[in-house]
Amino acid sequence: MEMLVRRGFLWQSFEIYGGMAGFIDYAPLGNNLRRKIENIWREFFVINERSVEIDTPLIGIEEVFIASGHATSFVDIAIECEKCGRVYRADHYIKEKLNLEVEASMNAIKEVLQTYDLKCECGGKFREPFYMNLMFSTKIGAGKGKSAYLRPETAQGIFVAFKRLATYFREKLPFGVAQIGRAFRNEISPRQGVIRLREFNQAELEFFVHPREKKHPNFHEVANDELTLVDKFEKTHRISLAKAVEKGIIANEVLAYFIGKTRRFLLKIGIKDEKLRFRQHKDDERAHYASDCWDAEALTSFGWIEIVGIADRGNYDLSRHSKFSGEDLSVFVPYPKPVVIKKKKPVPKMNVLGPVFKERAKKIAEALERAEVSSDFIELEIDGERIRLSSEFFEVKEVEEEVTGERVIPHVIEPSFGLDRISYAVLEHCYDKDIVEGEERRVLRLKRWVAPIEVAVLPLLSREPFTTKALEIFSMLKRNGFYADYDDSGSIGRRYRRYDEIGTPFCITVDHQTFEDGTVTIRDRDTTGQVRVLISDLPRILRELFSTERSIEDFGEKFR
Amino acid sequence: MEMLVRRGFLWQSFEIYGGMAGFIDYAPLGNNLRRKIENIWREFFVINERSVEIDTPLIGIEEVFIASGHATSFVDIAIECEKCGRVYRADHYIKEKLNLEVEASMNAIKEVLQTYDLKCECGGKFREPFYMNLMFSTKIGAGKGKSAYLRPETAQGIFVAFKRLATYFREKLPFGVAQIGRAFRNEISPRQGVIRLREFNQAELEFFVHPREKKHPNFHEVANDELTLVDKFEKTHRISLAKAVEKGIIANEVLAYFIGKTRRFLLKIGIKDEKLRFRQHKDDERAHYASDCWDAEALTSFGWIEIVGIADRGNYDLSRHSKFSGEDLSVFVPYPKPVVIKKKKPVPKMNVLGPVFKERAKKIAEALERAEVSSDFIELEIDGERIRLSSEFFEVKEVEEEVTGERVIPHVIEPSFGLDRISYAVLEHCYDKDIVEGEERRVLRLKRWVAPIEVAVLPLLSREPFTTKALEIFSMLKRNGFYADYDDSGSIGRRYRRYDEIGTPFCITVDHQTFEDGTVTIRDRDTTGQVRVLISDLPRILRELFSTERSIEDFGEKFR
Repeated sequence: MEMLVRRGFLWQSFEIYGGMAGFIDYAPLGNNLRRKIENIWREFFVINERSVEIDTPLIGIEEVFIASGHATSFVDIAIECEKCGRVYRADHYIKEKLNLEVEASMNAIKEVLQTYDLKCECGGKFREPFYMNLMFSTKIGAGKGKSAYLRPETAQGIFVAFKRLATYFREKLPFGVAQIGRAFRNEISPRQGVIRLREFNQAELEFFVHPREKKHPNFHEVANDELTLVDKFEKTHRISLAKAVEKGIIANEVLAYFIGKTRRFLLKIGIKDEKLRFRQHKDDERAHYASDCWDAEALTSFGWIEIVGIADRGNYDLSRHSKFSGEDLSVFVPYPKPVVIKKKKPVPKMNVLGPVFKERAKKIAEALERAEVSSDFIELEIDGERIRLSSEFFEVKEVEEEVTGERVIPHVIEPSFGLDRISYAVLEHCYDKDIVEGEERRVLRLKRWVAPIEVAVLPLLSREPFTTKALEIFSMLKRNGFYADYDDSGSIGRRYRRYDEIGTPFCITVDHQTFEDGTVTIRDRDTTGQVRVLISDLPRILRELFSTERSIEDFGEKFR
Repeated sequence: MEMLVRRGFLWQSFEIYGGMAGFIDYAPLGNNLRRKIENIWREFFVINERSVEIDTPLIGIEEVFIASGHATSFVDIAIECEKCGRVYRADHYIKEKLNLEVEASMNAIKEVLQTYDLKCECGGKFREPFYMNLMFSTKIGAGKGKSAYLRPETAQGIFVAFKRLATYFREKLPFGVAQIGRAFRNEISPRQGVIRLREFNQAELEFFVHPREKKHPNFHEVANDELTLVDKFEKTHRISLAKAVEKGIIANEVLAYFIGKTRRFLLKIGIKDEKLRFRQHKDDERAHYASDCWDAEALTSFGWIEIVGIADRGNYDLSRHSKFSGEDLSVFVPYPKPVVIKKKKPVPKMNVLGPVFKERAKKIAEALERAEVSSDFIELEIDGERIRLSSEFFEVKEVEEEVTGERVIPHVIEPSFGLDRISYAVLEHCYDKDIVEGEERRVLRLKRWVAPIEVAVLPLLSREPFTTKALEIFSMLKRNGFYADYDDSGSIGRRYRRYDEIGTPFCITVDHQTFEDGTVTIRDRDTTGQVRVLISDLPRILRELFSTERSIEDFGEKFR
């Protein structure tokens, strides 16, 4: 963390005003890292899926969160000191002070408080524990205003817009809708820095599927990937995804597909496979909306932390929003071929109805034709009066009806990414030390495509003509869209170390030979090797290096 | 707007719950458009400036906005009906009902209300007008919580982090810090759809300069650009930036540079020069922090609307945050060479002081040495007592002192972009109708680099083998990172029209010849012309087309 603050990855927000727990600034390097991770996520989960991305408001009117259940279920249990007024999250405080894992239910918490006579850090007694809703609340408009909340997840914006989205996709399942952006959780007393934020960044994909067809057309691409699974009985498997589905460890192919794709994405951005596992939620651990859920967990200095959740949310959200808004949120799924079904239909016997019901006979006959046959009598409601007709009043005929499809409320599989924790885990997994020229070197072995500064241009000596030439190359690379940097202060060795520490994969050095033959050296961060190349070839070579894992030695003669 | 909703650019947020004024959803196409505009903004204002980008919280603790002045000055005047309780923004309601432009001051509003006996739409009388703060407020943490607001501009996050940022840049002016993200403004009763949002997207650059050196090293790049300026006396000029600075119409070179760069950016993304002007704020119109301000205005169906504000904020923000936080927010600016200054210094005459002041003489002598000489006597404060020493008690000697530089609080020039209005103006400026094959065609002539769907892959006929081949090409283009689409429903002509309407610059068509020689056609949206190219050349050709304005005819033989 010291390095991350000092070198400009992450800063404490509002530092000059004493800071505020649960908020961080993405400093210049951290911002670039996270933005690049977001763009790679887009490639994986938007461009290369049948997906689109939308961007909906961060403020949501209360109707949304009453329907989603967050207004009632998105709570933690808090305890407040009678004496000093400090408030703690009950289960965290119990874990910290008593080293007890307690279930986050009111009964369990109360029992622990009574059994152990737990006191506040100031020595004071606690009042009765209470529920605290974790959404930030606000008001829209003047006067009393309309109640609203800052969204606790980006997902709800997608569910609320589902009717429009289904039309956009012409109601053809499966389709995915993604959203990348801020979400908020008013944590009671967060203490874990970047790991427990009140304002955080999510990338979520809601992948809508037919409830009876939880298959993905591209499953074969990841089916043979082997990975570490910890199932809900805490059993660990090293197993391929195909086998995990076959054995029923993972409930369905869509979940398995997104577990596989999530792993490939995480490896691509620099998470280490040996520090990555997928853990299934236990039956009592799942959120109120999930029917099965797997967390991607990364091993960091905070222990195993959840960085992605992949949940089968069933039709919970769409059903709830449909119920609360009164809108139909189903889609029409045509059958491959229209199906002809046989149906029993009542046909009124007018010659029996007429004499009995007189002038009401016609109305009754019409109602009969719309009625269903289920037993040997039919009950109708005519002008508020219930009439029971025995089988003497109608015949039952079998008719054929063509049905072209059915309306279904899609199920949704949701891979939900915590971008802050992911960025942090990438930094930890890539941080390394080695020995270069007899000295310890700190080096951030970031993948090329997530490096915040892509290339540094350095004059060998900080004087003319080296500096002007280096500045020219610097400008040229920026015009070509590279995140370039220029530095002429200190010895060249010290400058290389600085860029090693922030993960810059390549340094370009202007030296004496530059003025003889128009070449510069490219230095590789990981090997510290250098090759000489023509200045005019730099954009092409760098573009190639940043889209592959090729070695610089493919592009020029080894130098020194 | 009808097209934008129907085709998936912008949707009303929370539509199934009746909607909420001031909030919009970026639907799939609108999202891509805005994201692309953001990325081009980054190229212009981050990568190719001496700038970095950061990302700070949307929630700000109240200290920030007390210092910035928003807690007191970010207000509108509201009027509330006694009868129905509706609340209006006073100046907007007066404009709407009386067609009067009224200054937004309490006195002016009160006078109009008294003079015209203005009533509510329901017929009710208004109560006394009152100030309403336009920030959304919330609380952080449990219990009463800490007061906080949703940021009204991204800029404050930059000023609050200034100390860290100055260190990051090793205190070398000028430097820029950018931020792209959400900002909030709790409008009293917004009625103008996408033009007046309660939650909106900003891209802001804070460019910190030496207060006495408001010059930009790259001014020469835009100095000869001619543009339309409307000065604060409402005089219109068509003039180059160099001349505008020379004549004093624009206050300084940095402002002029960013006006020029803003214009180039806007033209690049598709704003039309003839519908763009830069208007200077009048003296009574500027925000509380600005010393000069120019708005970029675009002509749309809403009239001329502000889409960018370019303000000289002076040192207002840094001074205020320095004062309220107690932190020094100046930077040390070394002089090119150390300066030797001559200074007059008092030297105590102990032989005169001693007899008069006895045991206090030593203390007085020490204080004298630290005092400044300004006239022929010196006043000192010794242990709370003021002592006036005439010149008999000291000599004045001239000494030399070396000064290496000075501490200054930088000034800031701020180009602030409203991304929602910009995206909307781009859509209006690019919307066009023409006649193709005798029929009217609606076509969105978006620049290639902002098109939401870059390329559509279409089978000539919606059956095998055309569909499978088209799907293969579709996947291949997505793997190459293109925002591609696939469509096989309806006649080919109808499909071309659909993509014309959403601004897709190129359609790829798989036809009979594809199966003979591995070629497809590329169709240009604007000319409707087509050329034949090899499938295997598509990624290279498309990459070239998307980074230039070259014609498709450069890449293949004209077809038909």
